[in-house]
Amino acid sequence: MFKTNQYFDGNVVSIGMDSVEGNATVGVMAAGEYEFGTSSVEVMTVISGELTIKQPGETEWKTYRKFESFVVAKDVKFKVKCTQDTPYLCLYK
Amino acid sequence: MFKTNQYFDGNVVSIGMDSVEGNATVGVMAAGEYEFGTSSVEVMTVISGELTIKQPGETEWKTYRKFESFVVAKDVKFKVKCTQDTPYLCLYK
Repeated sequence: MFKTNQYFDGNVVSIGMDSVEGNATVGVMAAGEYEFGTSSVEVMTVISGELTIKQPGETEWKTYRKFESFVVAKDVKFKVKCTQDTPYLCLYK
Repeated sequence: MFKTNQYFDGNVVSIGMDSVEGNATVGVMAAGEYEFGTSSVEVMTVISGELTIKQPGETEWKTYRKFESFVVAKDVKFKVKCTQDTPYLCLYK
């Protein structure tokens, strides 16, 4: 009943759901660097460890830690890197 | 590369990982009531919404909300219920 998705040869796996906060996924990223595209505003929250992010148009990376969130605009690409398996929550707005 | 598991006819789905906090899963439970068994101490954290828990030997249920955690002993059974798709993190100690 839950749909799972794999990206980047299975280095990122997520599970979709209808949470109390709306349409969402929880997932895990393996150590690596990834570029994601958005089709809605996304609010991403680190669940354990940390994710380092480069927002579209920015030159600097910024690191977010356990329970910290960042917002990514609609219809953009952004970069994420991490150094260990890192679980995250993504809310689609 | 990540292993996903399904329980209770797919009403609970999880993804295993080696997080910075150790061996862990992130998962989602559909609305319902479940009994889980532990084979190690487990630290469970609600990621969104809430989970209502009955610890082994207890008669009362207790509710945990977003980012709240509870610990379950090794080799016991405990009950969990929720009223909407609820994402969680489980750390195995």
